[in-house]
Amino acid sequence: MLPEPTLRRLPWYLAYVKMLDGKHQVHVSSTQIAKTLNVDASQIAKDLSFLNIKGKTRIGYEVHPLARALNEFLGFKHRHNAFLIGTGSLGSALMRDLGLMQYGLNIVAGFDIDPSIVGRNVGDIPVLDFSMFPDKQRSTGVSIAIIAVPAQNAQEVANTLVQNNIKAIWNFTPFRIKVPRNIVLQNTSIYSDLAIMYNRMESSNNSKYCTK
Amino acid sequence: MLPEPTLRRLPWYLAYVKMLDGKHQVHVSSTQIAKTLNVDASQIAKDLSFLNIKGKTRIGYEVHPLARALNEFLGFKHRHNAFLIGTGSLGSALMRDLGLMQYGLNIVAGFDIDPSIVGRNVGDIPVLDFSMFPDKQRSTGVSIAIIAVPAQNAQEVANTLVQNNIKAIWNFTPFRIKVPRNIVLQNTSIYSDLAIMYNRMESSNNSKYCTK
Repeated sequence: MLPEPTLRRLPWYLAYVKMLDGKHQVHVSSTQIAKTLNVDASQIAKDLSFLNIKGKTRIGYEVHPLARALNEFLGFKHRHNAFLIGTGSLGSALMRDLGLMQYGLNIVAGFDIDPSIVGRNVGDIPVLDFSMFPDKQRSTGVSIAIIAVPAQNAQEVANTLVQNNIKAIWNFTPFRIKVPRNIVLQNTSIYSDLAIMYNRMESSNNSKYCTK
Repeated sequence: MLPEPTLRRLPWYLAYVKMLDGKHQVHVSSTQIAKTLNVDASQIAKDLSFLNIKGKTRIGYEVHPLARALNEFLGFKHRHNAFLIGTGSLGSALMRDLGLMQYGLNIVAGFDIDPSIVGRNVGDIPVLDFSMFPDKQRSTGVSIAIIAVPAQNAQEVANTLVQNNIKAIWNFTPFRIKVPRNIVLQNTSIYSDLAIMYNRMESSNNSKYCTK
């Protein structure tokens, strides 16, 4: 299995070589990537070796094929169908984020329990009553679900998803949900990131006062 | 300075005790928190000691004051004004996400360079031409900026922000931007998280085949 730190760096390389590709640059050295992204050149070579990509001495990597290979390897070229549970402000924002589609994620339906939302569309995506989830899952075979419900309902919703053949959960709530071992759980903690930013701002303010 | 792992766990505690508070539970033991969130009880006690919060023997923590203290400590109770640069699909999704407001983040203006968007509102927030940024920053004193521009423009935009008194950047692009040391940089890599989820799904499929 690929080490997670490698997997976190690969999208940086992709973003960078896509930019170079847009500027019609043909080759890039690991030194140039290293300098721009602040990653060790030897680390870059090691990371890319997982994709069986090797640079050529003095020439480096071919930009366009590298971008293609990274895009393919990261799963962004394939279409992954997903359900989204909880079409509140964050949930409906994700449904409207067409950027996700570029990264291979296709939200086919939203689910909610609020009768004023159920039956409507968010963007072009229909919102169904969550009680329909088991039926809809069976008829579509979708195995990915995004959770954007209020934190207090996150675990209960996750349990229902797991009972109904969901194999991967992308959790946007700040709640630390638990799932069986065979279920893939990915947490994206926007609000934790916000807390960390606030805290660092505070610290940098304080240290400013200290040195005065 | 608070260790980052502690800072990442505090929002989990907050989400959990807020849920208990909603159910009118008065006390919670660190064992109960530990069991639910899968964190060591001694670690919880240590994390909360940074907030000068101590549980009482056999009673545990008082739920409501703990929720208040965590909310306060994490900076969610204060209003932090911010600009958002790049009002494409992800950017405008963030502008519509009223959830951010609950966590203290108030987006006061969006900026873009697309003339078909500039001058409009997203949600209730006006979108201005990015050339107006320096003026608008000076007149408002806003020091936080969220970057949601195409990855290839991320570094250039960041440079402009730093030159115009922005002190903290929340980077939603997959581009690894560089900023001076005194600037707070927080990356939220939604698409990396997606790549990690895809990769784990693949691995768990593969291991399923192997055991057959």
